[in-house]
Amino acid sequence: MKTIIVNIGDEILIGQIVNTNAAWMATELNIYGIDVIKMMTVSDEKNAIIDTVKSAMNESDLVLITGGLGPTKDDITKKTLSDLFNDELAFHQESFDNIARLLEQFGRVPDDRYRTQALMPKNAKILINKIGTAPAMWFEKDNKIVVSMPGVPKEMMYLMSKEVLPLLQDRNIIQEIVHITYISYGKGETDLSDMLEDFEAALPSSIKLAYLPNTSNGYVRLRLSGRGSDRISLENVLNAQAEALNKTLGNLIFGKDNDSLEALVSKLLLEKSYSLSIAESCTGGKISHKITSVPGCSKYFMGSVVAYSNDMKINLLGVNPATIQNFGAVSEETVIEMAKGAKETFKTDYVIASSGIAGPEGGTEAKPVGTIWIAIAHPSGIFAKKLKLGNNRDRNIEMTSNIALNTLRLLLLNQLNEDLKPTY
Amino acid sequence: MKTIIVNIGDEILIGQIVNTNAAWMATELNIYGIDVIKMMTVSDEKNAIIDTVKSAMNESDLVLITGGLGPTKDDITKKTLSDLFNDELAFHQESFDNIARLLEQFGRVPDDRYRTQALMPKNAKILINKIGTAPAMWFEKDNKIVVSMPGVPKEMMYLMSKEVLPLLQDRNIIQEIVHITYISYGKGETDLSDMLEDFEAALPSSIKLAYLPNTSNGYVRLRLSGRGSDRISLENVLNAQAEALNKTLGNLIFGKDNDSLEALVSKLLLEKSYSLSIAESCTGGKISHKITSVPGCSKYFMGSVVAYSNDMKINLLGVNPATIQNFGAVSEETVIEMAKGAKETFKTDYVIASSGIAGPEGGTEAKPVGTIWIAIAHPSGIFAKKLKLGNNRDRNIEMTSNIALNTLRLLLLNQLNEDLKPTY
Repeated sequence: MKTIIVNIGDEILIGQIVNTNAAWMATELNIYGIDVIKMMTVSDEKNAIIDTVKSAMNESDLVLITGGLGPTKDDITKKTLSDLFNDELAFHQESFDNIARLLEQFGRVPDDRYRTQALMPKNAKILINKIGTAPAMWFEKDNKIVVSMPGVPKEMMYLMSKEVLPLLQDRNIIQEIVHITYISYGKGETDLSDMLEDFEAALPSSIKLAYLPNTSNGYVRLRLSGRGSDRISLENVLNAQAEALNKTLGNLIFGKDNDSLEALVSKLLLEKSYSLSIAESCTGGKISHKITSVPGCSKYFMGSVVAYSNDMKINLLGVNPATIQNFGAVSEETVIEMAKGAKETFKTDYVIASSGIAGPEGGTEAKPVGTIWIAIAHPSGIFAKKLKLGNNRDRNIEMTSNIALNTLRLLLLNQLNEDLKPTY
Repeated sequence: MKTIIVNIGDEILIGQIVNTNAAWMATELNIYGIDVIKMMTVSDEKNAIIDTVKSAMNESDLVLITGGLGPTKDDITKKTLSDLFNDELAFHQESFDNIARLLEQFGRVPDDRYRTQALMPKNAKILINKIGTAPAMWFEKDNKIVVSMPGVPKEMMYLMSKEVLPLLQDRNIIQEIVHITYISYGKGETDLSDMLEDFEAALPSSIKLAYLPNTSNGYVRLRLSGRGSDRISLENVLNAQAEALNKTLGNLIFGKDNDSLEALVSKLLLEKSYSLSIAESCTGGKISHKITSVPGCSKYFMGSVVAYSNDMKINLLGVNPATIQNFGAVSEETVIEMAKGAKETFKTDYVIASSGIAGPEGGTEAKPVGTIWIAIAHPSGIFAKKLKLGNNRDRNIEMTSNIALNTLRLLLLNQLNEDLKPTY
């Protein structure tokens, strides 16, 4: 069933409020397999409303409208829709009773203004709004359904959940839809789409794959969506495709839905009863912050040293001054000694260490900005790796943190072999 | 000039992302006096894009499109728009050079796929996107302007601010506009608007004040905008109002435009040649991360200890075990010893220390989740303060970090008196 969402309100058009109603409605409708083909936001103005609703009715089967039903004078939706459906407004006792009940909670009695608010189109189905004074109105004409709801988010959500969706279900209008979303790290959208070319070409028409990259953290989510009339067979098809996707990408996939690398690492540390500490230089506390953003981390996380100065690398982490002298603070030798030192100090099974030039200043010809060493101390040794990143300080800190967490993840899974090493 | 915003993207229609682009664009356009008469969101589908852009051109003078310009195959906007304007795609060297420049930062060289991405409609004006691979395209036909931009919010914002709005100004389509934006910390929007009631009432009609709260970090930006035909007189009026605003809010204002508390603190430390170290418990590295996100911080920042376990508070920061035993890790006594210990270890003029219960677990009746102590060691003593925050872990970590930085800022300014203490 093709659906168009229409949000009425000047406050959206001037950018004063973000249209979260449309996103919430779309999410709900999507779950039920209803295709939202368009969203439109228009002004609180009679002609704009008429034109928009008419064109939406031409293009779709279901038009869901929010906004423009409150008591203030810029709200003219009710009258406009009534005209559009050649209907007329009449006093609606049940709506008035609902208003009276709500006002009673504040010790008030409805006056005449509220009698005007209880005027409703005679031929529409009125859906009572138990948490607000404006009900929803359900119109039908030429096999099209138009529903108008108030714009207050919680009232709209109440009416959608308790009235509109159940009515659509009663009419057998709603289809089945199933999603599976994986989350990957280590390759960008373009590389992933190359790796998945054959997979995508072989997808049945009922299944779609979407790439959802997050540019701020480098994660790419991969969402498989299936739609059909029979949920069981749909789930079977989707699960088979999800398995194939998983197999193709292997360890590039680290989780599902809203997982994060730090949450995965935390889960693995907890499962295996390992402890963790961190020795940061160029990442400056970002890795520690990520680890401690996971609730319950005190069970495995002992602490960190952010050793920004060389003196602190020496005094707090026991790095040999000669190592810094001979190889520099940004070197494999130093980052390994940092990891060893933290392991000693914090007595943990694992350590993440970082040392590099985050930029924008501080680079040399031999070690340009973006040269960063990470090391992971584990129960049987120390793994170290050199990263060559770019010139953007924030991005270098974020990428180094995620690469370090991803490397720790692969080590914890015993899967850090060359094949699976991400390319950066 | 009547304007319609068109956002292309299935991810919006299925409710996966909220359309914040439309709200941001509308806010900007509104400042410049451009009326947004409609917003439309449509699918990544050829016919949907054509129909929508055509109808938008019929109803308005300016159509601003976002989305559908990335490298993967579900992005078909470029080809569709090119067809719509009877144009054809041709290799565009400047776009390719821009892609090459961006990839170079990651040590990569563009391959053939990127040549396809650099195909652009021959007759459109191409607006280079310095922060992303997809440029904007500016089409004109029958006195209508259609601009297509990428959907990634920061890229769209860059192109709107640096290319699209200036071009509209060059054409005298929009008026002169001048902004002054202050940034404040310590009071919410409601408190600020109470404090500014008289100021707002006395504003001349050419000047508007907008409150731009950032719910993730608690900053509230205050933007004064003036619009008119004569830039010089506009600037004079605006400067006078800015001074009055500054005087009214005093130290609640910490900077301008995109300043951050950490940048301000860094500036003050540098100016006064003071050094800083950090002893974090509940903030888990977040304060260190904020400080080290400022380029050049190695001049004053020596390092941090994230002492998550009690053992580490004792071993690394020299907290007396009896203090933790008697008063608990979350106490004024412990946080003061943490600050003292860090001062000793790092030999710095200033120290920030934090210890608290970030949640969601770990609270008690006497010390519920959100009970957090901060301390600032300064050259002549230690200031400590108890915070009573909420149940949200991320928010508690973020707010504690910002309150600590703001307290350090006021100490560095010698302005931490009762009058100026923020209320939390």
